[in-house]
Amino acid sequence: MGGSRTVTAISELRVNGDRLWGRLEEMARIGATPAGGVHRLALSDEDRRARDLFRAWAESLGLAVSVDGIGNMFARREGTGGAGAEGRPPLVLGSHLDSQPTGGRFDGPLGVLAALEVAETLEEQGVRTARPIEVVNWTNEEGARFPPAMMGSGVFSGRFTLADALGATDADGVTVSDAIDGIGYRGALPVGGRPIAAALELHIEQGPILEEEGCEIGVVTGVQGARWFDLAIVGEEAHAGSTPMSRRTDPVAALGRFLVDAYRRIERDFAPHGRLTFGVLAAEPASRNTVPGRVAASVDLRHPDDAILDDMEDALRAAANDACLERGAAWRLDDVWRSPPVRFSGRCIDAVRAAADLCGYSAMRMLAGAGHDSVHTNDVAPTGMIFVPCEGGISHNEAENITPAQAEAGANVLLHAALGLVDPPPADMLSAPTNQPV
Amino acid sequence: MGGSRTVTAISELRVNGDRLWGRLEEMARIGATPAGGVHRLALSDEDRRARDLFRAWAESLGLAVSVDGIGNMFARREGTGGAGAEGRPPLVLGSHLDSQPTGGRFDGPLGVLAALEVAETLEEQGVRTARPIEVVNWTNEEGARFPPAMMGSGVFSGRFTLADALGATDADGVTVSDAIDGIGYRGALPVGGRPIAAALELHIEQGPILEEEGCEIGVVTGVQGARWFDLAIVGEEAHAGSTPMSRRTDPVAALGRFLVDAYRRIERDFAPHGRLTFGVLAAEPASRNTVPGRVAASVDLRHPDDAILDDMEDALRAAANDACLERGAAWRLDDVWRSPPVRFSGRCIDAVRAAADLCGYSAMRMLAGAGHDSVHTNDVAPTGMIFVPCEGGISHNEAENITPAQAEAGANVLLHAALGLVDPPPADMLSAPTNQPV
Repeated sequence: MGGSRTVTAISELRVNGDRLWGRLEEMARIGATPAGGVHRLALSDEDRRARDLFRAWAESLGLAVSVDGIGNMFARREGTGGAGAEGRPPLVLGSHLDSQPTGGRFDGPLGVLAALEVAETLEEQGVRTARPIEVVNWTNEEGARFPPAMMGSGVFSGRFTLADALGATDADGVTVSDAIDGIGYRGALPVGGRPIAAALELHIEQGPILEEEGCEIGVVTGVQGARWFDLAIVGEEAHAGSTPMSRRTDPVAALGRFLVDAYRRIERDFAPHGRLTFGVLAAEPASRNTVPGRVAASVDLRHPDDAILDDMEDALRAAANDACLERGAAWRLDDVWRSPPVRFSGRCIDAVRAAADLCGYSAMRMLAGAGHDSVHTNDVAPTGMIFVPCEGGISHNEAENITPAQAEAGANVLLHAALGLVDPPPADMLSAPTNQPV
Repeated sequence: MGGSRTVTAISELRVNGDRLWGRLEEMARIGATPAGGVHRLALSDEDRRARDLFRAWAESLGLAVSVDGIGNMFARREGTGGAGAEGRPPLVLGSHLDSQPTGGRFDGPLGVLAALEVAETLEEQGVRTARPIEVVNWTNEEGARFPPAMMGSGVFSGRFTLADALGATDADGVTVSDAIDGIGYRGALPVGGRPIAAALELHIEQGPILEEEGCEIGVVTGVQGARWFDLAIVGEEAHAGSTPMSRRTDPVAALGRFLVDAYRRIERDFAPHGRLTFGVLAAEPASRNTVPGRVAASVDLRHPDDAILDDMEDALRAAANDACLERGAAWRLDDVWRSPPVRFSGRCIDAVRAAADLCGYSAMRMLAGAGHDSVHTNDVAPTGMIFVPCEGGISHNEAENITPAQAEAGANVLLHAALGLVDPPPADMLSAPTNQPV
């Protein structure tokens, strides 16, 4: 076996946590807010600068950066199985660099920069893989400026058409198409339509469970299903002073009954996985001395099992019906969005779990809330996700925070899960010649 | 007994309903909206045109129109007891000509134009009263453009200072002072500070009771007390996808408990007079996939008895406390406004009842919701109100409606209630010389 180098066990490979943290800090300076967060909306000038920085880092590692027609960026480390489009399908590792309007520093960038760190670690240690590895930055995951969210991965997987995505507009009427051209990130690569061996995404949990369980790694087994509705309860406007209670059809009274019953049903019958959220609530016409004619609420229902989501929806409708019958009000529940539950690939889940074990991190299986690019890549490739805890479970918030050790742990698990998924798996010794698969 | 004329019983005097209706229709053309309502905000150009029309009608009857420093207009029919400021205190009849932004045709103008019709009927029939009668148009009853409501009568009665009222601004920053000058209705007459014998106001009910009871006249015995609060229930923002129900402090769940308990207590323990209205309701930060951190609601509590209002407020606080304890949320209830209950003068109530009986109208005693100029005149003079039904109880709405017969009935009761309050009361024969009290 030609070539010789310091022999180290593959199982002892670790990323350089300081380097990763330094890059996270440097990236966080682009669009930094005074309160310690990030304002880096998709396809904005801040996004352009983040992309330029990512491209510069990737190219300095010798990775070839290509951009597709929706702006998704792929930094490719060739495998030994052959370069270019003729080679084996790549392993795709990454996440997104765009942020919420007042977002945090880690939601997205952790997954992209940890993937870059994995590539650099392999490069540094001379580990060649048979499959190419691509570090991806998906365009517009947040959807904060241009709905819908997870746009780039959605076009890549075929959920959205390229034309629809390019035609989406922000609040000022600017199209995605113009914004992409404006920052110079419309690439020549076709969007999707090529095989992917597997996809892995490291992300902060954006919830409190890992922290509360004192667990270092979340082995994400899938994404719960989500259904969004608009609920309206309709009564009759009346003067607050002159209309006796007995003569009112007060939709707020019906709402009270409905809420108690809805929470009781969901909390009692669908624990621990069922989730019910009324994020938006408003009475109309919103006058202090007028009994509202109408109450509107958004409804967010989640569960990992689609059949159980059906039951939850039924329970919700029954609660609305009972409450409104009692109060003589009318109601309607309109569909807004449905995201069926996602089960990630068993191979990917196993690879993440094995990687955490190998590195000696405590790990637990868990579900993600809906809303990651992995939901879309799962349509076209075996997909897995790794979670690390975030402080207080806080995300979509300038206060979002993780420790350098948490970032490093996540990147180490990403590294070994990736190595577990390259085909064939590398031998456990870094003694192989760099021109052969390991 | 000098002079001779057709002798008619005073008890058979009636207003001219067609003339009254014609004036109501003509007034409704000023600021008319396509949907059949009225847009005639206080001190706007529409208000100026309404005031000009009222003044022209009054002057054509020989009434002397004076305007005070807040724009209140008084059209005076002299009594036989002596003219001018040296005479007996006047009987004041009227209401307001301003409207809600999308208001109805009768809320206010009915009271002003019926008072004018009373004056014209007396004039036409040669009925002289010892006391002067003044037909009043109070400035800015609605408060829709310039808060607070019932401004003109409030300054007249001393509830508000003239300086505060003149300094109030609309949404564009225009002051009442500038607006009054802009329409030329700042008068030389001092605001208030002069004796009033009694005040009567005819108004549409703005509620459904008279219509549902099939009753023609409401004998208003007072105005219920009202308390306004801002309620806030504070929980903890959380991601709708990643935060289990058991780890949430969801203020919407607490709101549900609170609403059920609050309605139960008020409807059970304070029926039939207690009233509870949540007109404004909102969750923050109002994002579909975020458990709200805070729910805010306006609270409007009403009852005719102030001590019972204390008990209702206690019940409300207990309901908030119980609900929030159960859900681990916090709450606060902030005072916004307190309007103590008002009891109208027994003499005025009796005069209205007697007038309805004399005219053969069905009548019932009832309370008004807070919010009429009569609440303020009651501070400085014996005051009474007359209600007529309005279609479906609808008011503050372009669909507000009454029939010509209802307007006429109200004006006839106003006429005879006024005659019952002039001192000395007129004899029952219209045979008296026009230069003697009747």
